[in-house]
Amino acid sequence: MPQKSRNIALTQVVQWEDGKATRLEDYLAAEEPLEMRAGRHSLGVTLRTPGDDEELVAGFLLTEGIISRREDLAALRTAGDSASQRNLVRVTLDPSVRLAPGSAARRFSAGSACGVCGKASITQLRQRGLRRPEAASLFDPEMLCKLPPTLRAQQAVFGRTGGLHAAALFAPSGDLLVLREDIGRHNAVDKAIGWALLDGRLPLSGHVLLVSGRGGFEIVQKALTAGIPLLASVSAPSSLAVQLARELGLTLVGFLRGRRFVIYSGEERIAVSATGAF
Amino acid sequence: MPQKSRNIALTQVVQWEDGKATRLEDYLAAEEPLEMRAGRHSLGVTLRTPGDDEELVAGFLLTEGIISRREDLAALRTAGDSASQRNLVRVTLDPSVRLAPGSAARRFSAGSACGVCGKASITQLRQRGLRRPEAASLFDPEMLCKLPPTLRAQQAVFGRTGGLHAAALFAPSGDLLVLREDIGRHNAVDKAIGWALLDGRLPLSGHVLLVSGRGGFEIVQKALTAGIPLLASVSAPSSLAVQLARELGLTLVGFLRGRRFVIYSGEERIAVSATGAF
Repeated sequence: MPQKSRNIALTQVVQWEDGKATRLEDYLAAEEPLEMRAGRHSLGVTLRTPGDDEELVAGFLLTEGIISRREDLAALRTAGDSASQRNLVRVTLDPSVRLAPGSAARRFSAGSACGVCGKASITQLRQRGLRRPEAASLFDPEMLCKLPPTLRAQQAVFGRTGGLHAAALFAPSGDLLVLREDIGRHNAVDKAIGWALLDGRLPLSGHVLLVSGRGGFEIVQKALTAGIPLLASVSAPSSLAVQLARELGLTLVGFLRGRRFVIYSGEERIAVSATGAF
Repeated sequence: MPQKSRNIALTQVVQWEDGKATRLEDYLAAEEPLEMRAGRHSLGVTLRTPGDDEELVAGFLLTEGIISRREDLAALRTAGDSASQRNLVRVTLDPSVRLAPGSAARRFSAGSACGVCGKASITQLRQRGLRRPEAASLFDPEMLCKLPPTLRAQQAVFGRTGGLHAAALFAPSGDLLVLREDIGRHNAVDKAIGWALLDGRLPLSGHVLLVSGRGGFEIVQKALTAGIPLLASVSAPSSLAVQLARELGLTLVGFLRGRRFVIYSGEERIAVSATGAF
């Protein structure tokens, strides 16, 4: 599996432990720049863990609002097999997609964990035409508790390097559909959503997106773009993430660990009867 | 302390634990957009945890290569006390600073955890004129082991929200100089370095920068811009971070936990005699 080996780099290190220093070889999570181009225009560079690059670009195009459906993407391909060609993805958009060159260049200028690049004013931050997820889903708390162990068991790279974020999509049944890892949290989410887009699965009604880190504003934005009704993380969300989730009706769950979680927004989609009142 | 209270937001949540759901109030790490402006030009927006905003902008200007010294910054001030004014910092650069409006706008377009925004081609990624840190420092492994407990003891916000990254600068003696927290790892680093810049302490020869998360490529870049000789993290670095640290002679330490750490680069600055060979 050539892509898997590009995820990992072996390097020589010195380990110090309790006064004793030892030379040894250790695994590192790979991080390389990926350039996205449409025609002759360089649309920007992102630092990512190599692998699933076309999914990453597809997901980025969707979650950043450049495209809104599979048909908007005429073609997508990695430039070639050489070291530099593997870090370049060529994008062909359907002619119907409106893309002002200036704004496109800015929107594409994303770092490894960056989701609001190039939005040049505060007021633009939340004007992206995000859709409200469908209201019909009802999730079982016991099913939710099973998702983090499933994610962890499937994480291929993290165990060796300790350095990657993960994002996973689960079917309404709780079955794992896809797991993607990346050194950037947002890249992992874009890869998972990009997989679903290319597989014709959008909108992801009834699905759960689980992320290994915290649930920040940009992750909420990305989940909404894909029509996901429930976003869960094993850590804390931010205040702005909670605000956006409440305004747009996304169910936001945090601290999903063991047999405990916290519902920050959209509790009507989770089968619980809460006691206490404010 | 009005800034501290802006770090934290109180919100109503539902906690589910082992079948029992309870309504309660919980703390969230605050996340708000910060806009940076020079004159009439909006230079970009970053998502950050409010507080130490002028330090954040000063650090960002330095670590992104817009300025190279304290004197390049003529003025820096938050626009006012209203909710929207507090999220706007006005920058006045010294007239000697060359700043092409187009490139500046792109370089400023940073997300909450983004350090390579707007660099429009892969070859530009590492052409920033970063300086090699001084070679004279020698650090004691026992001193390094004391840094993470010091950082953790001083983290004011994390204990309540579980959602913030921390960056701390330590003097050559191991004494804590400054600790900054933010929902974005890169923002925490920019705040700490910005504090040092505004306090006239650059270059930070003999100093240690400790970050709570992983040591990625952009964090290495930022440390080099401030003249820091040793960057330590409690988690794993990436392959590109190790590559850059080795090329530019930064000492890079990872997995600094308890009485163990791993040296990825620049072992000559750490007082160890390693056994074993390749």
